Amino acid sequence: MFATRCAVRRLPQRAARRWAHTPATLKFNSVTEQDIAHFQKILPAASIISTLSPVSSPASELSIFNDDWMNKYHGKSTTVLRPKSTKEVSEIVKYCNERGIAIVPQGGNTGLVGGSVPLKDELILSLGNMTKIRSFDPVSGIIVADAGCILEAMSEYLAPHDYIMPLDLGAKGSCQIGGNVSTNAGGLRLLRYGNLHGSVLGLEVVLPDGTVLDQLSTLRKDNTGYDLKQLFIGAEGTLGIVTGVSILAAPAPQASSNVMLALPKYDNVLPLFREVKRQLSEILSAFEFIDRKSYELAVKHGQGRALNDEDVEGAECFVLVETSGGKREHDEEKLNGLLESLLEADEPLINTGVLSQSPAQFSQLWAIREGITEAVSKEGKAYKYDISIPVASFKEVVDKTRDHLKSKGLLHDDAVKHVVGYGHVGDGNLHLNVVAAAYTPEIEAALEPFVYELVASYKGSISAEHGIGAMKTHALQYSKSTTSIDLMKKIKALFDPKGIMNPGKVLE
Amino acid sequence: MFATRCAVRRLPQRAARRWAHTPATLKFNSVTEQDIAHFQKILPAASIISTLSPVSSPASELSIFNDDWMNKYHGKSTTVLRPKSTKEVSEIVKYCNERGIAIVPQGGNTGLVGGSVPLKDELILSLGNMTKIRSFDPVSGIIVADAGCILEAMSEYLAPHDYIMPLDLGAKGSCQIGGNVSTNAGGLRLLRYGNLHGSVLGLEVVLPDGTVLDQLSTLRKDNTGYDLKQLFIGAEGTLGIVTGVSILAAPAPQASSNVMLALPKYDNVLPLFREVKRQLSEILSAFEFIDRKSYELAVKHGQGRALNDEDVEGAECFVLVETSGGKREHDEEKLNGLLESLLEADEPLINTGVLSQSPAQFSQLWAIREGITEAVSKEGKAYKYDISIPVASFKEVVDKTRDHLKSKGLLHDDAVKHVVGYGHVGDGNLHLNVVAAAYTPEIEAALEPFVYELVASYKGSISAEHGIGAMKTHALQYSKSTTSIDLMKKIKALFDPKGIMNPGKVLE
Ligand SMILES: Cc1cc2nc3c(=O)[nH]c(=O)nc-3n(C[C@H](O)[C@H](O)[C@H](O)COP(=O)(O)OP(=O)(O)OC[C@H]3O[C@@H](n4cnc5c(N)ncnc54)[C@H](O)[C@@H]3O)c2cc1C
Ligand SMILES: Cc1cc2nc3c(=O)[nH]c(=O)nc-3n(C[C@H](O)[C@H](O)[C@H](O)COP(=O)(O)OP(=O)(O)OC[C@H]3O[C@@H](n4cnc5c(N)ncnc54)[C@H](O)[C@@H]3O)c2cc1C
Repeated sequence: MFATRCAVRRLPQRAARRWAHTPATLKFNSVTEQDIAHFQKILPAASIISTLSPVSSPASELSIFNDDWMNKYHGKSTTVLRPKSTKEVSEIVKYCNERGIAIVPQGGNTGLVGGSVPLKDELILSLGNMTKIRSFDPVSGIIVADAGCILEAMSEYLAPHDYIMPLDLGAKGSCQIGGNVSTNAGGLRLLRYGNLHGSVLGLEVVLPDGTVLDQLSTLRKDNTGYDLKQLFIGAEGTLGIVTGVSILAAPAPQASSNVMLALPKYDNVLPLFREVKRQLSEILSAFEFIDRKSYELAVKHGQGRALNDEDVEGAECFVLVETSGGKREHDEEKLNGLLESLLEADEPLINTGVLSQSPAQFSQLWAIREGITEAVSKEGKAYKYDISIPVASFKEVVDKTRDHLKSKGLLHDDAVKHVVGYGHVGDGNLHLNVVAAAYTPEIEAALEPFVYELVASYKGSISAEHGIGAMKTHALQYSKSTTSIDLMKKIKALFDPKGIMNPGKVLE
Repeated sequence: MFATRCAVRRLPQRAARRWAHTPATLKFNSVTEQDIAHFQKILPAASIISTLSPVSSPASELSIFNDDWMNKYHGKSTTVLRPKSTKEVSEIVKYCNERGIAIVPQGGNTGLVGGSVPLKDELILSLGNMTKIRSFDPVSGIIVADAGCILEAMSEYLAPHDYIMPLDLGAKGSCQIGGNVSTNAGGLRLLRYGNLHGSVLGLEVVLPDGTVLDQLSTLRKDNTGYDLKQLFIGAEGTLGIVTGVSILAAPAPQASSNVMLALPKYDNVLPLFREVKRQLSEILSAFEFIDRKSYELAVKHGQGRALNDEDVEGAECFVLVETSGGKREHDEEKLNGLLESLLEADEPLINTGVLSQSPAQFSQLWAIREGITEAVSKEGKAYKYDISIPVASFKEVVDKTRDHLKSKGLLHDDAVKHVVGYGHVGDGNLHLNVVAAAYTPEIEAALEPFVYELVASYKGSISAEHGIGAMKTHALQYSKSTTSIDLMKKIKALFDPKGIMNPGKVLE
């Protein structure tokens, strides 16, 4: 989760902690002036940015493509191509495949695992010029768009039709639907609208040999053979380039409300989640968990103006509940009913609850939850783990990590200051943040592989939503068996025998 | 859609209209007495049914496994194995792979496309003895079960926990969760809870060489590499044997209502669908379309007791709307509000609406919709097409098919009596039924490939939910490009190089 829902901001620059591995066995050709000459035949001049002659763009023009969003990973590509059509993408890819030039597909470049920038000097193929909405059917809600469409632009396109995109995330002003599909992005609406494997109905993909795979179906149901498009959802650009996406939009809710609940103890989170699900049922759209320390950091760094001291007193943790439904009165009645029954229970699960009464208060409550990331980064250097574990184990994982650091003598003000947990309880997605005074090899050694092993011991995922990219290829085995990884490698070899598509990402 | 929600019934027996193709190139070994001797080493006696010595079961014991639900496809297998554990499945498959014995995985044997029975004398591996619920987490709603669990048994297991399965279908008393996953079954809840690609969270699969692929995750979010399990969803047993399934159950709705709407004209269906979606939003759980002739057939054959003559007068078609929500009063208020606004509109989209007032009336309204299949089969011989097309084209496809038959001189009482359409508007899934006096080669020739070509011209699917099985392998190209089919074949070869897994199904 990130500090803001509506704008992409750069985090303070920090030194790279680990450099990604490049597969030693693969050799690719660098882009040459001859290649540029060829690209000039298939693309208009405006679609080619290159430091190579005769284009000779200044290096600075390349940097927004070479550097990732966190400014942590830095590619050395000489050339960015910005095709406008699937046909152009296909011609570029076909040529690169023949020439043995490696390609990094790039969307909005907001990925957080170093997948969207080159490891070396791979060609960058940016989808940023492919921004057409191809079709929208207001009856079924199915929208078909070029892969380069910005998520927010699609939301804006849908709004007057009373539809919303089935996903939403902090990066929406920059990330592209093709990038979202390629990372299988989760985000803020997953609890309600499910994941992209369910809502993406079709894809158009340029395969690594340049062939166009047209599975751009606008059907909700199609059981004719293997569902190949699923493989590209979350493949992080290693199996081909997504050029078109067909996706099911959701009817826009007519009303949204939220409430911040203060819990006397951590153990109440799960029974509370059950009760909230039962009572709010289909209108529940978020159930976000915030531990006490996360809350305090948010307050300390200016995010927590919505609660009074008495609301907070004695609370071990907080839960933010959001509803979205078809009728405001009904939703409010349900929320009020929930609050009453919670407060009147014999052994109440909550101490208190603050219900937003206006759009401004609604945003203030969200600001606490969404401000944690920023607050954490103001407090110190954060080791961030975006993990999926069974909901029942959230507390255990935070506690075990803290205990482990303590046993290593690292839990004090000059080393690790806080171990905090927050995240999407509804999705089993915990953001485990270890806030340190500084990044040190000692802390890193204490944390890894400890955290990955801990996650593995719960059959958890070391990457709930951000993907593997270049950052976690070496850790894949903590979440996937050798059998799985071997099969992935075979699939990769089948689609991309020369390995030109985003080399060194996902698989080592 | 089928005549009943709660029981599996055999349709009247009818002659097979087309026999499936067996791939000429593949040669397999028949099961021998030596093989039986080997199976006896790895399985208890009760798990082996075989006409071969020394087991020597009577042939009649094999027939429920060899004959499909429609009694249209008939295998000639000598041997059915009913393992109780994944380990046993793995040992059987490993052995068969080495020996070149082909295997048909079989669940509840309720499939409608001949996929679940052998084409020749393949070994049948029935999952019917693997019926354990492995775990259930009442907080997240994630249930993990053996593949052989009957869908209805899983629903019953969940009921006391206030959860429901995210899918429901007429065959629920017999079909198994492994079979549902393998056919990517749609059914009655898809509009509300989405498809299995979204709700299946993990699978355990025995691969064609006997290796166990454990991707039995209980996580809602996991972005660690390619999502391999997706390939098995809808693979109809051709890539491996599903032995375990992890799936997200949905909180049980507290209340359900329905209403039958009579429309003056077909053209109103789509605007009505939009309006209903807008007003009912998250509580809409079904939007089923019934054309006038389908309705009349239902009445004629005893299904239509719920509407009066004046409700029906002047109606060109009907729509059944169902709501399921968390609070009865709210849902009824929304439904009443919808009906009022529909009736008071300047140009009303509906003539009238009948709202169920009791559980009995609720069932009576559903009985009309669900009784069509039975009514159609009483009226004559039905050519049934289970197609997906853009919702906007439903009427056109029915009309074009009727016109085409007319132009061939086949639209009269001795040939084609009716061309009717009904189905899940919400899912874009039309059941196009051509009701004839008898099955004749002339009618079949007029219908095929005409209907498949028509479907293809809308970029539709020739199989919305039933799959390809043995029945439609030759027609796959109407819904999938050569590029897609070639890739599917490569995937098949990658997983199953010897082709032992359900040969002749899905791919020719
Ligand atoms: C402020 C902020 C908030 C975020 N919030 C969330 C969140 O809530 N949930 C979440 O899941 N993620 C979140 N993310 C990370 C998320 O993965 C990305 O924001 C987004 O999905 C990536 O889209 P993009 O267009 O920027 O892709 P990029 O960053 O450009 O690329 C990401 C990966 O996909 C590949 N790729 C991109 N486009 C294509 C294509 N057309 N074809 C093939 N491969 C392609 C790239 O090669 C790369 O491997 C957040 C990031 C930021 C900066
Ligand atoms: C009355 C009735 C109503 C129906 N309603 C619907 C409906 O509304 N929607 C819909 O989509 N379908 C419907 N169907 C068809 C539907 O496909 C099946 O009912 C069901 O999904 C198949 O489950 P099964 O266990 O019976 O599988 P089977 O019929 O035994 O097998 C179906 C296919 O899956 C394979 N298979 C089965 N189990 C496994 C396994 N464990 N591992 C690998 N492969 C396996 C088989 O080899 C075969 O190819 C209906 C059928 C009937 C008879």
